[in-house]
Amino acid sequence: MTQVVLVTHGEFGDALLRSAEMIIGPQDGVHSVSLLAGESPEGFGAKLDAALQDVGREDTLILIDLFGGTPYNVAARRVREPHIECVTGLNLPMLIETLMSRDGATAADLAEVATQAGKESVRNLGPLLNK
Amino acid sequence: MTQVVLVTHGEFGDALLRSAEMIIGPQDGVHSVSLLAGESPEGFGAKLDAALQDVGREDTLILIDLFGGTPYNVAARRVREPHIECVTGLNLPMLIETLMSRDGATAADLAEVATQAGKESVRNLGPLLNK
Repeated sequence: MTQVVLVTHGEFGDALLRSAEMIIGPQDGVHSVSLLAGESPEGFGAKLDAALQDVGREDTLILIDLFGGTPYNVAARRVREPHIECVTGLNLPMLIETLMSRDGATAADLAEVATQAGKESVRNLGPLLNK
Repeated sequence: MTQVVLVTHGEFGDALLRSAEMIIGPQDGVHSVSLLAGESPEGFGAKLDAALQDVGREDTLILIDLFGGTPYNVAARRVREPHIECVTGLNLPMLIETLMSRDGATAADLAEVATQAGKESVRNLGPLLNK
């Protein structure tokens, strides 16, 4: 099963996973790596490497909070590995759709699922409801 | 200044705000309302009403974690109020861009900013980097 690694400024990755589990139940194979206030890129990189070492050579999708900044800069380099994919803009619908689509999906498949779910989840309700 | 209310399953709204503040510094006029495990829609609605009462008649943008589910169902009704707008798919770039664009912006202006920032933040890095 494709592993999922959440990469965030601060600890909202952990909180987001708990929120997803409120909705779809407990999940295996999800890891969260947080950049703490004052932490160096090297310290963060060491934590990410440890998470990826736990995962080994399994297909892995890294979901990153935002494009740019330390978590992105450190994590995005890993996309050169053939078994690792990365998507930015992590939100709850992206995470839930990703976790529910892991059976038989490669990291590349899941990256497409995550991207589509993330983009489609963003809706401005005023115009949508003809306000 | 347009007020911002985060509406989420579980407590990742609070965690997301702390992550945004790591990047752009402390923020005023941001409120977070969490649906806790086992909480009724009525209980959640009462907490949201209390947050909106604190805000009063100021322009208010409600950022909702996902389309559907209790937080959405309870919060989206408020979009009928002329001074309230709602956007779904809350993520960190949406929140940061919203908070940095509040000066002189109405809730409707900010809803557009939030929607565009949210959608543009979702990127699949493999194809983007010609993997």
